[in-house]
Amino acid sequence: MEAIIAKKAFSLSEGNCFEKVTRERPEPTGHDILIKVYATGVNPVDTKMRQTPLNQSERVLGFDAAGVVEQVGSAVEGFKPGDQVFYSGSNQREGSNQTYQLMNEQYVAHMPKNLSYEAAAALPLTAITAYETIFDVFGISTDTEKNKGQTLLIINGAGGVGSIATQIAKAYGLNVITTASREETIEWSQKMGADVVLNHKSDLKAQFKAQQLKQPNYIFCTYDTDGYYDTMIDLIQPRGHIATIVAFQNKQDLNALKAKSITLTHEFMFTRAVHGVEEQMYQTYLKDVAEKIEQGVYQSTLNDVLEGLTVDNIFKAHQQMESQAHIGKLVIKIAD
Amino acid sequence: MEAIIAKKAFSLSEGNCFEKVTRERPEPTGHDILIKVYATGVNPVDTKMRQTPLNQSERVLGFDAAGVVEQVGSAVEGFKPGDQVFYSGSNQREGSNQTYQLMNEQYVAHMPKNLSYEAAAALPLTAITAYETIFDVFGISTDTEKNKGQTLLIINGAGGVGSIATQIAKAYGLNVITTASREETIEWSQKMGADVVLNHKSDLKAQFKAQQLKQPNYIFCTYDTDGYYDTMIDLIQPRGHIATIVAFQNKQDLNALKAKSITLTHEFMFTRAVHGVEEQMYQTYLKDVAEKIEQGVYQSTLNDVLEGLTVDNIFKAHQQMESQAHIGKLVIKIAD
Repeated sequence: MEAIIAKKAFSLSEGNCFEKVTRERPEPTGHDILIKVYATGVNPVDTKMRQTPLNQSERVLGFDAAGVVEQVGSAVEGFKPGDQVFYSGSNQREGSNQTYQLMNEQYVAHMPKNLSYEAAAALPLTAITAYETIFDVFGISTDTEKNKGQTLLIINGAGGVGSIATQIAKAYGLNVITTASREETIEWSQKMGADVVLNHKSDLKAQFKAQQLKQPNYIFCTYDTDGYYDTMIDLIQPRGHIATIVAFQNKQDLNALKAKSITLTHEFMFTRAVHGVEEQMYQTYLKDVAEKIEQGVYQSTLNDVLEGLTVDNIFKAHQQMESQAHIGKLVIKIAD
Repeated sequence: MEAIIAKKAFSLSEGNCFEKVTRERPEPTGHDILIKVYATGVNPVDTKMRQTPLNQSERVLGFDAAGVVEQVGSAVEGFKPGDQVFYSGSNQREGSNQTYQLMNEQYVAHMPKNLSYEAAAALPLTAITAYETIFDVFGISTDTEKNKGQTLLIINGAGGVGSIATQIAKAYGLNVITTASREETIEWSQKMGADVVLNHKSDLKAQFKAQQLKQPNYIFCTYDTDGYYDTMIDLIQPRGHIATIVAFQNKQDLNALKAKSITLTHEFMFTRAVHGVEEQMYQTYLKDVAEKIEQGVYQSTLNDVLEGLTVDNIFKAHQQMESQAHIGKLVIKIAD
């Protein structure tokens, strides 16, 4: 089997330090499944981890994969060889930039029957991030009727997380306002189901006023948290809830939250993996994604495919992530 | 009627700038009630407001009161002259450091039948703060059974808010751990119902470990938020929720919330008053307080009474609040 590894942390300006190596295929034990990876996703978290010093001699990046179960550990109950599956993986284990990967079954779900491997691999990490934000963080009801009249504002609606978060929130009955600025991102966000797309290059509060939009109950920030900190506090309704997945560059004044009793969460999709708690939620959310995709409620957020597990493609994918201008999701096809 | 006023913002080191004045008794209109005030509470918020520049020529401080309805506005439905009532008041209106006060009926509830005016006046602001934190912020269920096994840590269990928050959380089925350090505060917090009282002068994490306490689901900080910021993040369980009512002295690193996907709220009891939203919740919460007091589920947190509405007593009360060492609640008796 083959894997793309990095033996050190590096920035893209140092050149392409990824290497392709041949490894022996591992055997799954216990609750692990060995998956033949057909497609792997690329996410901003890859670029962050690439620049973080290693604890081990080499690492394999890549989260999100779709593939076929090759072999299962003796304790595995939910999967058998030949099953088509998809998963985000865990930041506590090797990633999916390889042709075979071991993963605990709690992280894995059967992939939607009506999607290609590439379209399926586009979904897990961003969908789980959005599910956690909508249900665990905001505490939004799974009863669609209860959510009528509530509004979610998503900062950057056309990114990977924004694209699927829009669809999930709409499916569960919320009004969704997103931001975008280019013609193609506005169009994409509308295609994902946004009720209103605002221009994040202009004053958002003025646009809320001009379009007579009510203050959002929830704001999900997927881009430049520092830049939007004051604006989000200004826009949200009293006792509203702001979540971000984007690390802060600066310390912030938390007293700004006081007048409206605002709640703020720093969502991180790997919290359950890092702390080993409620890991089965990864599977629970992916099952709902698969069901909603098969029912035609959600569509894949796939927008670009690079062909082949090569160091060039991995490097190119990291460049695209760092440009922050990507629309929807980028996936690398590994096998036919 | 008489009122204690201040014509400027001042610090206690400038001396006693409160003045006692005689005013004409107002007539209630609309949904307003005129209450003859028998007892008024004192809270840390009074000391903050005293130091904030005035928007008007003079102001009357004081939140929390218990008294008797003297007269009602034409639209008032829930109250009649002679009713015994209690309320926190609103930071958008004059306070209760006066012998008669106007208040909108949404902010008012019938006071517990088994309490003195002083014991009743000890409760509203702190109880509403605690109800908002427990139910609106943490989203804790009103179904006691659902809360079994969940733990709330209260930083400073013996203060006004900590004392009533302990009782409410216990009544709704939570385990409650508090902090205190002096013999009398430890004893007081135990009397309020805390399951475990830790010493906040020693390492809290070490005490959690030594006593084999599980990570709290919720932490409510009622003292020195900056000083406890890192400790709270360290103690809380993954995906846990921290609330504070104490303003920050410094900007904070919000990335510290990421690894555990922590949620943080800056609770402020006057948010609904400031923004004019859901003001009826003040009454809703006070009704539950009165019911639970009458059932013997809660006890008043009153601990000290100053006799008489005098500038000396108001000044002395502010001094006690600023010492931050107060146990339970301090109330000023105005009438018999």
